[in-house]
Amino acid sequence: MKWRRTHYSAEITPEMDGQEVIVMGWVHSIRALGKIIFVILRDREGMVQIVAPKQKVGEELFSQIKKLGAEDVIAVKGKVIANEKAPNGFEILPLELEVLNTAQRPLPLDPAEKVPAELDTRLENRFLDLRRPKIQAIFKIRSEMLKSVRKTLYNEGFVEVNTPKLVASCTEGGTELFPISYFEREAFLGQSPQLYKQMLMATGLDRVFEIAPIFRAEEHNTRRHLNEATSIDIEMAFADDKDAMEILEKVVYNAFLDVYENRKKEIETLGIEFELPSEKFDRITYDEAIDIANAKGVEIEWGQDLSREAEKAIGEEMGGLYFITDWPTETRPFYTMPDEKNPNICKAFDLMYKDLEISSGAQRIHLYDLLVENIKKKGLNPDGFTYYLEAFKYGMPPHAGWGLGADRFTMVLTQQENIRECVLFPRDRQRLTP
Amino acid sequence: MKWRRTHYSAEITPEMDGQEVIVMGWVHSIRALGKIIFVILRDREGMVQIVAPKQKVGEELFSQIKKLGAEDVIAVKGKVIANEKAPNGFEILPLELEVLNTAQRPLPLDPAEKVPAELDTRLENRFLDLRRPKIQAIFKIRSEMLKSVRKTLYNEGFVEVNTPKLVASCTEGGTELFPISYFEREAFLGQSPQLYKQMLMATGLDRVFEIAPIFRAEEHNTRRHLNEATSIDIEMAFADDKDAMEILEKVVYNAFLDVYENRKKEIETLGIEFELPSEKFDRITYDEAIDIANAKGVEIEWGQDLSREAEKAIGEEMGGLYFITDWPTETRPFYTMPDEKNPNICKAFDLMYKDLEISSGAQRIHLYDLLVENIKKKGLNPDGFTYYLEAFKYGMPPHAGWGLGADRFTMVLTQQENIRECVLFPRDRQRLTP
Repeated sequence: MKWRRTHYSAEITPEMDGQEVIVMGWVHSIRALGKIIFVILRDREGMVQIVAPKQKVGEELFSQIKKLGAEDVIAVKGKVIANEKAPNGFEILPLELEVLNTAQRPLPLDPAEKVPAELDTRLENRFLDLRRPKIQAIFKIRSEMLKSVRKTLYNEGFVEVNTPKLVASCTEGGTELFPISYFEREAFLGQSPQLYKQMLMATGLDRVFEIAPIFRAEEHNTRRHLNEATSIDIEMAFADDKDAMEILEKVVYNAFLDVYENRKKEIETLGIEFELPSEKFDRITYDEAIDIANAKGVEIEWGQDLSREAEKAIGEEMGGLYFITDWPTETRPFYTMPDEKNPNICKAFDLMYKDLEISSGAQRIHLYDLLVENIKKKGLNPDGFTYYLEAFKYGMPPHAGWGLGADRFTMVLTQQENIRECVLFPRDRQRLTP
Repeated sequence: MKWRRTHYSAEITPEMDGQEVIVMGWVHSIRALGKIIFVILRDREGMVQIVAPKQKVGEELFSQIKKLGAEDVIAVKGKVIANEKAPNGFEILPLELEVLNTAQRPLPLDPAEKVPAELDTRLENRFLDLRRPKIQAIFKIRSEMLKSVRKTLYNEGFVEVNTPKLVASCTEGGTELFPISYFEREAFLGQSPQLYKQMLMATGLDRVFEIAPIFRAEEHNTRRHLNEATSIDIEMAFADDKDAMEILEKVVYNAFLDVYENRKKEIETLGIEFELPSEKFDRITYDEAIDIANAKGVEIEWGQDLSREAEKAIGEEMGGLYFITDWPTETRPFYTMPDEKNPNICKAFDLMYKDLEISSGAQRIHLYDLLVENIKKKGLNPDGFTYYLEAFKYGMPPHAGWGLGADRFTMVLTQQENIRECVLFPRDRQRLTP
């Protein structure tokens, strides 16, 4: 490479008329009209029109440009020419061209194609799929969201941690784990950092967060589940469920705000109506939620988890973001703190967006005896939780936390219906590649 | 919990004399001298002395305080009393006490103990080990480093990505992988995001980074290796090895700077001499490196990877941070770009801190034919790389990148000799718990 890029396409303006620039990217389209060639160059920030009249660029450069094909990778040194009729009010007159790589043709998937291919074909050729600005916009918004989430958590005094994904045997119960062979032993892939982040509450680090992959060997095949997902996890000491919900509101609201303010172009590219939520989210109890479902003709008995139909009915009624609180204790994992007055309900909450659960959390049990009792009640063996339980014996403060699905949150922010649209290389039962 | 903490210990000053505060934390020590009790409360930010004279606090509160034991978790509402003789110029006169949880005794590890226990005992009881301010300081610095690294990368136009850790079979060669059973199939845990981040260079995202776990089934048992590690990975398009090295210099330098400026207290707690490096790091070639080793009596032939002894000899000579460049092509993975003039050396670099390799990177091969040839040269089968190779057929720009070990970088920043000190729950061949 002789040169370095001086400007992304979107950084060039008509006011730069006469200035020399170097742009780099892919040949989005090429049109030769006798003695003039129009090349649209695509880079991360947009497109730029390069206009090469034979008379001005000379024989050699003209024939070099003429040989270009769709999706070739090029660097162009050229002069900015203000032109009201050109796409962004300017075009580039090429002075020199470097072909950095060529593309075989036909392409298995054409990034310039207006009609999108089937999802499976797109995922098979994700590197080409991602050249479409609409697809790239999803992942720029995802990156912005992750940046925003961390910013809020740092501001709230959280410390970033990394907990192990290779675990000996501990399981929270309820979810299938992927087994690994770990040298001479069997081990498993962590389904969530739950037990680790709770153990860290006994350290004095007080507020921790982790954004990391989680692995669930569940056989579901839905538009909302994957076998490998990215989870945003927090845990906070000296806090209850209400405190954790407040942090969650801040994290989610600020992410909406940051995407809204910093990713206007991507929102426009996606062509979505992006509305900021209010800073405080509606809160309904589980009892109210099942009343709504029942009123809409979806049968659900007290004590059951919400069925897909119930979620849809409730989501239709509630719209946007809302919490469901006061869950029946039996619907939640063993570490959930029961209500002092009525132990049949517990201090758990879900954050929903319409009919999609995007986060789940609770105040946790910090009392050793109650925790052991609850593990047994769920039909699990406390002996499988030795290391975890140790942390509750020597001074465990009250604590609460939640997990927020990064992939699902991206679905909400980009208004996608299938979680696979929000993950670069999704993993489900059928798909382990690319 | 009746209350919420109003102040961390370090937020209270003598100037707040007379003010009511609520502090929460662990009983670090307790000393009853007849009619007066001294309690040191420890929280994340430090310690605070609570002084309870029987006469002032009354019979009931006095006897409540007297019952406290080491590592109980308490909340204290009290009044700040300026006192020149007290540790930070003030003490707390308790008005009310809430015991949030009690600690069993004896403790398997005493956080107040001056003499640290054996590493194995400490890792077994990591939640107690982490109560020691020196240990906690390591992880606060680690969190600061990660925050700083992302800040630099965002500023340099990088997009955060998440690539899959469950992979079908592709291997870079050289490293053993952990096998998983993935439903009906066999799969593996990713040893690095290398192939994915390179595929993303064909998308137009241009600059991507990922901070995520990597898994290596290597049987080594050293103070510098773990089987699960956290890797900071970047890849950048339209760039060569020199560009990637510049980004690495910025990332590393800024992390030093941010730790230096924002974690002064932790540096002091660790008792280390923390020196800022210069903004540009020394650069020596592989040839110069082996000359240094040979001059110090460590035999090493051209074309060999550096032995541990060679690293030590070179590190002794070079000190601090330095690059080793121009590596023999045969010592590096198949995707490394050979030098145009002398294909026996390649555009690879390592970043060293003394004798510790903390980062490894290179310009990569972006040309399909050369890449296939190189895969074969290394004795690997191109058929195992179908998805990866596809991305090179349809317009792959020149690109470069590196991986920086987050755990090793933390070792450097905190001056630790064993990588296990810098990982909350380390994983090695012997250790899968807690």
